[in-house]
Amino acid sequence: MTFSFELLHRDGPARVGRMATPHGVVETPVFMPVGTQATVKGLTPDMVRDAGAQIILGNTYHLALRPGGDLVAELGGLHKFMKWDGPILTDSGGFQVFSLASQAKITDAGAKFRSHVDGSLLELTPEKAVEIQQQLGSDIAMVLDECPPGDAPPEVVRRAVTRSIRWAERCKAHHTRKDQVQFAIVQGGTNLDLRAECAKELVAMDFPGYALGGFSVGESPAAMHAALPTCAACLPEEKPRYLMGVGRPEDLLAGVASGIDMFDCVMPTRNGRNATAFTYAGIVKLRNSRHQRDPAPLEADCPCYCCRTFSRAYLHHLFRVDEMLGPILLSLHNIAFYLRLMRDSRRAIVEGRFADFHAECLAGWKRPAPAA
Amino acid sequence: MTFSFELLHRDGPARVGRMATPHGVVETPVFMPVGTQATVKGLTPDMVRDAGAQIILGNTYHLALRPGGDLVAELGGLHKFMKWDGPILTDSGGFQVFSLASQAKITDAGAKFRSHVDGSLLELTPEKAVEIQQQLGSDIAMVLDECPPGDAPPEVVRRAVTRSIRWAERCKAHHTRKDQVQFAIVQGGTNLDLRAECAKELVAMDFPGYALGGFSVGESPAAMHAALPTCAACLPEEKPRYLMGVGRPEDLLAGVASGIDMFDCVMPTRNGRNATAFTYAGIVKLRNSRHQRDPAPLEADCPCYCCRTFSRAYLHHLFRVDEMLGPILLSLHNIAFYLRLMRDSRRAIVEGRFADFHAECLAGWKRPAPAA
Ligand SMILES: [Zn+2]
Ligand SMILES: [Zn+2]
Repeated sequence: MTFSFELLHRDGPARVGRMATPHGVVETPVFMPVGTQATVKGLTPDMVRDAGAQIILGNTYHLALRPGGDLVAELGGLHKFMKWDGPILTDSGGFQVFSLASQAKITDAGAKFRSHVDGSLLELTPEKAVEIQQQLGSDIAMVLDECPPGDAPPEVVRRAVTRSIRWAERCKAHHTRKDQVQFAIVQGGTNLDLRAECAKELVAMDFPGYALGGFSVGESPAAMHAALPTCAACLPEEKPRYLMGVGRPEDLLAGVASGIDMFDCVMPTRNGRNATAFTYAGIVKLRNSRHQRDPAPLEADCPCYCCRTFSRAYLHHLFRVDEMLGPILLSLHNIAFYLRLMRDSRRAIVEGRFADFHAECLAGWKRPAPAA
Repeated sequence: MTFSFELLHRDGPARVGRMATPHGVVETPVFMPVGTQATVKGLTPDMVRDAGAQIILGNTYHLALRPGGDLVAELGGLHKFMKWDGPILTDSGGFQVFSLASQAKITDAGAKFRSHVDGSLLELTPEKAVEIQQQLGSDIAMVLDECPPGDAPPEVVRRAVTRSIRWAERCKAHHTRKDQVQFAIVQGGTNLDLRAECAKELVAMDFPGYALGGFSVGESPAAMHAALPTCAACLPEEKPRYLMGVGRPEDLLAGVASGIDMFDCVMPTRNGRNATAFTYAGIVKLRNSRHQRDPAPLEADCPCYCCRTFSRAYLHHLFRVDEMLGPILLSLHNIAFYLRLMRDSRRAIVEGRFADFHAECLAGWKRPAPAA
């Protein structure tokens, strides 16, 4: 097994690390572009790599439905299937069962639900989540957890914590694949006592990495930002910490500031398809007519193919006439921006100036967008 | 002015040539991918170049509506706007006025019509068609012609020929841009006498290149194939010959066999978006479930990124789950296939075996597609 994590630099709680996986090394803090259905939407693997991605995420729920874990295994695993030869992390599928599937019934045994694709009755147990991810062959697999919504009553959040701990135990016991590690997931909502209790139990099981689940599920960003430092501090220093499904650029920086190492989110691609770009100067909406005659690039100092090559006027045109190339180029830029944000964060941490970098970014995002 | 055309090889009526333009040299016979709205649908200019494209086509009607000829000119021309630094040919916009615009009224003066985008009342005259293309700055501009449907009555076809000749004259008189050449367009439907008469008049005006318009407009492929040798022979030997808007791979080869040098068609990208691939072994429909577990590439000896990288199983999956990457990869392959077909045709002509190559291709396309 070639998994390891090494802390290289600290700057307050923020940290720079080096995570080795069977498919290569990842420098942390890292953003993982989301390849839900074995493709990062709109981009070839070459484009994802060129944008600077080190590791991507696959969604077990979607892949289990189509094309199916057995088919991916038969074709040599997810890396080979989608031709991404870098590291891959897969989630457990639980989050999608709760958010996408219909008629989900959750018991201590697992979840029964109907496929959102064809309505067929399916079951996801901790053991099944392990098995599918072993078929996919991701470098990092996640345990099955129960993720209640942000407005769930306290007793539901508590029950989810208890259940997630038991399920983590069962996932660990069922896991056999030597070239894959399992990360555990801490639940507990914004209840810091519950979070600490959940973390304590899971840390005792000695997983190689830990995630914070149940954030960005409807609670306010302020509530999440307030909870992150305490939650991160409940996790072992020497192991990677992953904040699942988060978030906006400011959320990533709040995570880094709290000592989080890994992030994933669909926002860069989803917003890119919708003509919305992230930059250091804030959100840029390319459908806005003020870009119509603008020869400047989307973001002057961005090294991505989109910014190196095209004008805002051209991007505006592509979205105005509904050409596929608009979503392609903006997905590419947004992913490149998230990756650059993490690269710049790593450098700032190494140089002991992360707090300043963080403050400068927030100031830039508060200013009104510059005139075209 | 740096435009020239040189015939390098002949093999019966089929020919290999070298066309020099201000933006580079084009080896003929050549297929021109269609970039209707300043983008070859779904592909970056880098991908179009990597697929082997030498020259692309832009649609004046679409570009005149959005973003407008003046805006493209202001931003430095179409090459700079869309970041394609190779040669570009633009059509005159006439074909789209007749096929897309509503309420088109055509008189000797020109065409009045309503925009298919916003219903605004617009006019396209021969002079206007010249001016817009001069704003776009294409290397090769087309004269405005009248293109009647394939089932038009004889008197309509005759009137279109008369009008197209007068319009060609007016276009030539109005054209001033020195780094752009104008090609004339022969009309006449499948009436070979009319075609010859039209060609004679236009050839007398000494254009640097000639196109055959009014094919692939509803007549049978057999009728077009039968007409092509005679129509091509009416055009000057020493100038490039362009068969507009054609067609399927077998139509391109019929054109090459008749002495045609240039082709354009939306079929590679349109069919690619619809999960249909062109190969030397015939049409492959990637949605077909027989591809579901097939680890083989779409076309084993195709040098394109899609075939070099992915399996049929993966392509099938992408279309099944409606991922953008499916249309992207199949558009890329189909364009690469059309370009390879022309490259292989050129080689066969140089080696004096085009008739054999042509027959082999037709035999390959008649065979049932090989089992997966
Ligand atoms: Zn960029
Ligand atoms: Zn190919």
